[in-house]
Amino acid sequence: MYINRPASFTDYYELTMAQGYFEAEKHHQTACFDYFFRTNPFKGGYVIFSGLKDLLEVLENFRFNESELSYLKSEGFSEPFLEYLKDFSFKGDIYSAPEGEVVFPNEPILRVEGTLIETQIIETLLLNILNFQSLIATKASRIKQAAGNCKVLDFGLRRSQGLGGIHATRAAMIGGFDGTSNVYAAQEFGIKASGTMAHSWVQAFDDELSAFRAYANSFPDDTILLVDTYDTLNSGLPNAIKVANELKEKGHQLIGIRLDSGDLAYFSQKARIMLDEAGFPDVKIAASNQLDERVITSLKLQNAEIDIFGVGTRLVTGDQTPALDGVYKLASVNGEPRIKISENVEKITTPGPKMVYRYFNSDGSFYGDAVAIESEPSPEQMNHPIYTKKTSQLADKKSKVYQQQVMAKGKITSPLPTVQESADYCKLQLSKLTQEYKRFENPHIYKIGLSTKLFKLRDKMLNNHQK
Amino acid sequence: MYINRPASFTDYYELTMAQGYFEAEKHHQTACFDYFFRTNPFKGGYVIFSGLKDLLEVLENFRFNESELSYLKSEGFSEPFLEYLKDFSFKGDIYSAPEGEVVFPNEPILRVEGTLIETQIIETLLLNILNFQSLIATKASRIKQAAGNCKVLDFGLRRSQGLGGIHATRAAMIGGFDGTSNVYAAQEFGIKASGTMAHSWVQAFDDELSAFRAYANSFPDDTILLVDTYDTLNSGLPNAIKVANELKEKGHQLIGIRLDSGDLAYFSQKARIMLDEAGFPDVKIAASNQLDERVITSLKLQNAEIDIFGVGTRLVTGDQTPALDGVYKLASVNGEPRIKISENVEKITTPGPKMVYRYFNSDGSFYGDAVAIESEPSPEQMNHPIYTKKTSQLADKKSKVYQQQVMAKGKITSPLPTVQESADYCKLQLSKLTQEYKRFENPHIYKIGLSTKLFKLRDKMLNNHQK
Repeated sequence: MYINRPASFTDYYELTMAQGYFEAEKHHQTACFDYFFRTNPFKGGYVIFSGLKDLLEVLENFRFNESELSYLKSEGFSEPFLEYLKDFSFKGDIYSAPEGEVVFPNEPILRVEGTLIETQIIETLLLNILNFQSLIATKASRIKQAAGNCKVLDFGLRRSQGLGGIHATRAAMIGGFDGTSNVYAAQEFGIKASGTMAHSWVQAFDDELSAFRAYANSFPDDTILLVDTYDTLNSGLPNAIKVANELKEKGHQLIGIRLDSGDLAYFSQKARIMLDEAGFPDVKIAASNQLDERVITSLKLQNAEIDIFGVGTRLVTGDQTPALDGVYKLASVNGEPRIKISENVEKITTPGPKMVYRYFNSDGSFYGDAVAIESEPSPEQMNHPIYTKKTSQLADKKSKVYQQQVMAKGKITSPLPTVQESADYCKLQLSKLTQEYKRFENPHIYKIGLSTKLFKLRDKMLNNHQK
Repeated sequence: MYINRPASFTDYYELTMAQGYFEAEKHHQTACFDYFFRTNPFKGGYVIFSGLKDLLEVLENFRFNESELSYLKSEGFSEPFLEYLKDFSFKGDIYSAPEGEVVFPNEPILRVEGTLIETQIIETLLLNILNFQSLIATKASRIKQAAGNCKVLDFGLRRSQGLGGIHATRAAMIGGFDGTSNVYAAQEFGIKASGTMAHSWVQAFDDELSAFRAYANSFPDDTILLVDTYDTLNSGLPNAIKVANELKEKGHQLIGIRLDSGDLAYFSQKARIMLDEAGFPDVKIAASNQLDERVITSLKLQNAEIDIFGVGTRLVTGDQTPALDGVYKLASVNGEPRIKISENVEKITTPGPKMVYRYFNSDGSFYGDAVAIESEPSPEQMNHPIYTKKTSQLADKKSKVYQQQVMAKGKITSPLPTVQESADYCKLQLSKLTQEYKRFENPHIYKIGLSTKLFKLRDKMLNNHQK
C-alpha cells in the first residue's frame, strides 16, 4: 500500500471544491482530466513515465476512513457532504501510457474520466506520484546511459527527501538502475539490494587490515572492501590485496574494492594496476561520491577503471531539477470541451478528451507524436501547437496509440507489470529513441503536434473566448 | 508513526555490518556517533535543525518484524544473527540540540551513544529524517524572512518528492510557515490547512461568474476567488467584485482573491486599486506561481500588493539544493576516540564524544560556537578547525551547551515539543542570529571552533596516523 490514508494525501482545495460541487449539485456531471508536463527535466530530451502501478493501486483503495471524516468534520465540512464521502470510492476510467514509456512535453500521457468530484479529488495524489517517479526514472535513465555497460547502484536513501526515498528507488530501477542499497524498497518491490561496509566499519577495528579480514570472514563470497578510510594507495589497497590473497587460499574470491573520495579517475587507474599486478584482474572497482550522468561521462572520458558506480543524492533527488512540472487539467465537463486561457500562451490548455498517436520511422524508431481527439483515426498531418504555419505530413508513417485503458469503473483492468517488467519495457522503448534526443547537451526537440481536427477545435474555442 | 517498517528503512550495508560485528563478537562494544553537516544549503548562513521528534519516536519503536526477518533470511543473513535481531531494539542514549535550533556546519548537533550495532544500524534512518526536515525547515525560514509580515502558505504537495511531502510540510511549519494545503500533514501534526479553488473549478461552470457565485454560496465566510482563468483584469476581478458585493449584501465578506500567473507585481497593484475603489480594502490578495525567497524579495522591492504568498515546489523540494549533506560519523569505540583521515582535509573527522558550547554577545545575540570534549568546562578559547593560527578568546562571554539528553536507554526522556512549539522556538532563536548571517547574498560566516583540548586530541591522532 502506497500510503495509509490516500484520500487525505491531497490539497485542501480538492475537498472544498468537492463539497462545492456537491452543494451545487454538479457532482454527478462527468468530467475528463489530462495529465501532462510542460518541460523536460534536466534540460534533457524526454521523460520516462513512471508511478502508474502505485497510482492505480492507491485509487482502487481510495476511501475516507473514520479518522479522516472526523477531522474534516472538525474543519467545518458539512454533514451531508461528509455523509456522501463516507461511501465514496473512485469509480472512474483511466487511459494511460504504460509505465516505462518514453514520453514528451505537452502530450496527454494519461486521461481520467468519471464524475466531476471523483476526477477532481484525486488530482494532488495523482500529480505527486506521477511527477516524482517520472522525474527519478528519467534521471536514472540518463545516469545509466552515461555508465554504458558498467553497473549503476542506487545509494541515495540517506539523502533522499524523507519517505520519498522509497519510491525514488522504485523509479530508479524502472529507469535502468541495476540495484539499490535501499532495503525497504528491495523487499517492497522485489528488487536486488546490496551493500558491504562504511568507513565506520574500518574505524571500529584497531587497524584497517583487521577490519578487512573480519568482513571477509563473515562474507567470504560477497566482500567489497572500502579502501579510502586512511590512505587509499599506501594502506587501503595493499591491505585489500592481502585479504584477496587470503580469500583465494581458502577457495573464495574478493568481489571488489570501493573508492569514495579523492580523484576517482586517478585512484581507479592506480587501483586497477595494483590489483592486476597482484593477480586479481577480476576484482571489480566500485566508485561513489557525488556522481551523476555528467561526472560519470567525464570519468569515462578519462578512462577511469570503474566497473560499478554507486549514485546517491543526485539520483534520488533529481539534483538541480528536483521536480517534474506535471499538471492535471480539465479537458471536458458533461461531454463539452473546456479550455483554460492564460496570460502565458504555452499555458493555454487543449480542450476535450484526447489520445496520442506515436509515429515511427521505417527502421522502427520514433518519428513524432500527434495529439488527436479521442476516437479520431490516425491523423495524416500534425500541426505545431503554437506556430500555425508549421506542419508535418504523416500519411506514409506507421502509428500506434500509446494509451490503453488501465482502469475501468475504479478497477484495474489487467495485471500490472512488475518493476522489472517496466524496466525491460523502458529499455526497449529507449532503444527506439535515437541518440540525438538522448544526448545531455542541447538534445534535439522531439516532434509533438496536434491533429488538424483538434487544432481547429482549440482555435474555435479561443475565438469564442475572445469575443 | 513515521513508517511501518523503520528497521528496513536503511542501507543494506548497515545490516551486513551488523552481522559482521555480531560474528566478530564486537556487538557489545560501545560506540559514539556524531550527526553533523558540512555545508549550509542555499548558499545561506545557517540551518534550522528539524526532524528530531520523528526520529526519536521511530527509534522508540525500532524492531524487526516477521516479514523483515524472513526477507533477510532469504537474502542469506545467518540464523544466529537473525535470532539476535528478533529481540533487537534500540537502547542507546541520544544528546541533541532541540528541534528548531539554529545550527551551523561541522558542529556535532546530535550524538548517539550505545552498542556498536545499535548506533550503526540506525544511521540511514537518522540521516534521512534529519537531513530532509532540516533542509526544508531552513528553506522555509528563508522564505518567511523574505515575506516579512505577509503570510506564507505551503502549496507544495503535488510536486513534492513522493511521500516526502508529508514531512516537508511539517518542517516548513517549524521553519516559520503559517499554513499548508496538505491535508494529511495538517491532520497528522495538528497544523492549519487551507485552500479554496483551482482553475478547474472555474472551468467546470458555464461561466466565471457562476463559478464564483457557487463557491461563495457554499463557503460564504471562507472564499478566495482565483481570478486568472480567463482574463484577470477584464473578467476575473470584475466578477470577484460582483461576488464581493453580493456577499456583503448577505452579511458576509469575501476573504480574498488569488493570482496564479502573469506579472504578479503588476496584477496585484491593479487588483488592489480595483478592490479599494470598489470599497473592499480588506479583501486580501494572494499570489502563487513558482515563488521562493528571491522572487518574493523582488516582488516586495516592486511594492507588489500581495498579502499572502502560496509557495510550492521550491519550498518542499529545496529547489536548487535538494539535499542537506548531513553525515553520521564514528567518534569513539569502547571509550577510545576514532578518527577518519581523508584525501580531502575538510573530511577529516573530529575524534571522541563532543558537545557544543554556544557563546553570546552582551545583547544576547549569538557570537559563535565552540566544539568541546564531552564533559569539558566552557572553553576560554576556540581554534579554527583547519587554520592553526586563527583563534577566538571567549573568557568574557556567557555560554550554554546546546545539546540535552533526549533519549536514555532507548526511551524518550521528556515530552517532545509540538510542531507549533518547535516553530516558536525556531522564531526565538532566529531572532538571536543577527542579520548579516541571514542575508541571501554572501552571508557572513558564523564562527565555529574547537576547544584547545579537542584541537590537541585531533592533532595527536593525526600525527599518530602519519607515523
